Amino acid sequence: MADPNLAVVEDREDDDLEGLYGLTDDLVRSVHAAIAADDRATVRELVEPLHAADQADLVQALSSADRDLIEKYLGREFDPQLFAYLDEAVREDLLEDLEPEALARVVNELDTDDALDIIEDLEDADQAALLQQMPVGERALYEEALGYPEESAGRLMRREYAAIPIDWSVGQAIDYMRSDAELPDEFYGLFVVGPDHKPTGIVMTSRLLRRRRYVPVKNIMETEIKLIPVTMDQEDVAFLFHQYGLVEAPVIDDAGRIVGVITVDDVVHVIHEEHEEDILKLGGVQADDLYEAVVATTRLRGSWLLVNLATAILASIVIGLFQAEIEKVVALAVLMPIVASMGGNAGTQTLTVAVRALAVRELTASNALRVLGKELLVGAINGLVFAVLMGTVAYFWFSEMEIALVIGAAMIVNLVVANVAGLLIPLGLDRAGIDPAVSSGVILTTVTDVIGFLFFLGLAGLVLF
Amino acid sequence: MADPNLAVVEDREDDDLEGLYGLTDDLVRSVHAAIAADDRATVRELVEPLHAADQADLVQALSSADRDLIEKYLGREFDPQLFAYLDEAVREDLLEDLEPEALARVVNELDTDDALDIIEDLEDADQAALLQQMPVGERALYEEALGYPEESAGRLMRREYAAIPIDWSVGQAIDYMRSDAELPDEFYGLFVVGPDHKPTGIVMTSRLLRRRRYVPVKNIMETEIKLIPVTMDQEDVAFLFHQYGLVEAPVIDDAGRIVGVITVDDVVHVIHEEHEEDILKLGGVQADDLYEAVVATTRLRGSWLLVNLATAILASIVIGLFQAEIEKVVALAVLMPIVASMGGNAGTQTLTVAVRALAVRELTASNALRVLGKELLVGAINGLVFAVLMGTVAYFWFSEMEIALVIGAAMIVNLVVANVAGLLIPLGLDRAGIDPAVSSGVILTTVTDVIGFLFFLGLAGLVLF
Repeated sequence: MADPNLAVVEDREDDDLEGLYGLTDDLVRSVHAAIAADDRATVRELVEPLHAADQADLVQALSSADRDLIEKYLGREFDPQLFAYLDEAVREDLLEDLEPEALARVVNELDTDDALDIIEDLEDADQAALLQQMPVGERALYEEALGYPEESAGRLMRREYAAIPIDWSVGQAIDYMRSDAELPDEFYGLFVVGPDHKPTGIVMTSRLLRRRRYVPVKNIMETEIKLIPVTMDQEDVAFLFHQYGLVEAPVIDDAGRIVGVITVDDVVHVIHEEHEEDILKLGGVQADDLYEAVVATTRLRGSWLLVNLATAILASIVIGLFQAEIEKVVALAVLMPIVASMGGNAGTQTLTVAVRALAVRELTASNALRVLGKELLVGAINGLVFAVLMGTVAYFWFSEMEIALVIGAAMIVNLVVANVAGLLIPLGLDRAGIDPAVSSGVILTTVTDVIGFLFFLGLAGLVLF
Repeated sequence: MADPNLAVVEDREDDDLEGLYGLTDDLVRSVHAAIAADDRATVRELVEPLHAADQADLVQALSSADRDLIEKYLGREFDPQLFAYLDEAVREDLLEDLEPEALARVVNELDTDDALDIIEDLEDADQAALLQQMPVGERALYEEALGYPEESAGRLMRREYAAIPIDWSVGQAIDYMRSDAELPDEFYGLFVVGPDHKPTGIVMTSRLLRRRRYVPVKNIMETEIKLIPVTMDQEDVAFLFHQYGLVEAPVIDDAGRIVGVITVDDVVHVIHEEHEEDILKLGGVQADDLYEAVVATTRLRGSWLLVNLATAILASIVIGLFQAEIEKVVALAVLMPIVASMGGNAGTQTLTVAVRALAVRELTASNALRVLGKELLVGAINGLVFAVLMGTVAYFWFSEMEIALVIGAAMIVNLVVANVAGLLIPLGLDRAGIDPAVSSGVILTTVTDVIGFLFFLGLAGLVLF
């Protein structure tokens, strides 16, 4: 068989990934045609050589009509492992249609942590039915895992780990690894535990091999380890791995005993998920809805637009207070969107930096005041620059010095307010225990719109009439 | 010495990280006071127990006046390794003040990949001076690395790797590892290479240990490896690691020979950086400017606001076309911001999903049309819902059926346009080779504002007069 990765012609502009990433638009089209024609030989030829992760991408790229036919190919042309890589919406969609036996087969094929991902998302009845079919030992394992909070270290960890007593020598450790003990097939290091099963260090297998047999393990172990409580939120786990460059860390129960292990490759997924969540929330989308059906997408986005409508009406009410002024000087209506737009954009800049800094714990009580001072200054300087700029534009446009002065003053006030609000809103939400990524944006634009229009139109009322 | 991680009292609301993350606001304040009083004993007591990553966070939390004094403490109270964890702006700030000898000492203390991070950011003259001071071998190594493009696999990889010939047995491999060959101190697996130095597989050390000595290595090696070209962009490297759940991958030169290795823990930093870039660009900030000085921040943000001002003026010009209508029916001016705001927000929702999907290669030519159909539908349905809602509000507010109908119609058109534009703009930019995260937002609001105002005021002109 030819190398599957080289057999496929990559048609993206950047050919950096050519031959390394298995999926192409051509391939998707060919598979679609083969499925439509129920040409199993061709489906197999195209799909089987792909990595399960690429098969997952392929399934996602297929239309839902094609997807309905996947069950038939599962376990033969399509690798059941692909479920570990599917987007949640598509996975749920596929799982719904699966017969209970097919579902059990899929779960059976997966690693325990990937299987757990699927089991935890099942409806209660389906979950119970699936667990019922399992051998007692396996069922107990999943039931224990499901007892930990969602998105906690307990859900993320692998239950298989390699540990040795602290009084062993290098030779004993090597012999233990070489014996056919029930060790995981692949691991980076051995945890060193005390008699009470509390982890005290870790020895990388590569380092172990480089030392003489009589050397006590405790002399060569790395003692700077981070013990992850089994209930810790996965976002905090990811933070610790990134902060300290961890490769693996033991997970401990309330009594401090080791119960599992989290490795950096599990954390990569969490980091992706958490970042994706942040970026989507900042954009006013609750979750990645690329694969959601129209109705679900409409409902989710609509509820956010409703909140936004309420705040937009608030801004309109402010404008409504100045109808008489606008009727007399219609230039005010023409310039209004500039005030709103500049304030909203400047505030969003500060807000984005602040939300990121809060997420990585770089914005704290100890530097908040300093950052506030800086944002004030940045707002004031840019306010001045744009006041002169926009004032000049307005003067030549409407030939009225008063209008130029009013829009200039509004620019300064609005940019200062925007920068300060862009910092204080996420800080305040974070302090109140509310995720700043979700609601900062809508509060910010409300503030910049309301204050922006109030000041601009109010000042115009005073100066022009 | 007491456990440094437990000695520190965490004062954040979420005490999940208590004892695990070393830095607290109290600690920052105490260090600040000790530095101000030049009380080295207290500085040492507070700082020395901290992990270099926490020391880096501490330095970032200190004021720049405190930071100016850090050089004095470097290598004693403060660990030079902290430079590997510093934010770029702070690092440059500190490095500028360092004496050449102190800089050489810092670089000497770091791993080669972290040292490279620092060296590549130095001014040309400083870089040459630093390299001049190094032993010939080391200098050649850095000069070779600097020859690779910035943010490429060549810059990211470690040059030390463990490789064995394909015809070896398990016993030979173990003996090799146990001999005092120049192997890296810690590694996960051994690369298996052919006589031409081309990598053909990888064996995890843990797996190697579990097999009998006479077994040929090629029988137990993992052959599904991804070969990373040394010039590949780090974003593509991160994509491959995430896509295929890689732990480590060999880096190869043009001739296919192994020249280095990239491990997943290096990639965690890249993933963070790339996500951070995306999120900041979407927010209209070119780079994380939390630690940048006021002038630099003002200039960077100002240039973006200037682009925004130009587009806002465009929207104003559209409004200017309808001054006569607004003068007669001032309710139009009151309702204008609602049209702009709803269009902008709905478009941003679609745009955020699209930019994310493009980044993770889930939005491609094969599903673009399907997604477009969906966005059209979502926009139309939400448009209808909000047309009824806002039409009713407008009717009761202004007691005029015509105004209610105009704003309702504008709502439908604007939400459909917003959703379609929110998809097509990033798609088009991506196809043209332009990063969609940077400019999608500003083009989108220009489109939604211009079309929104044009349709709303234009229709009003037809219906009301």
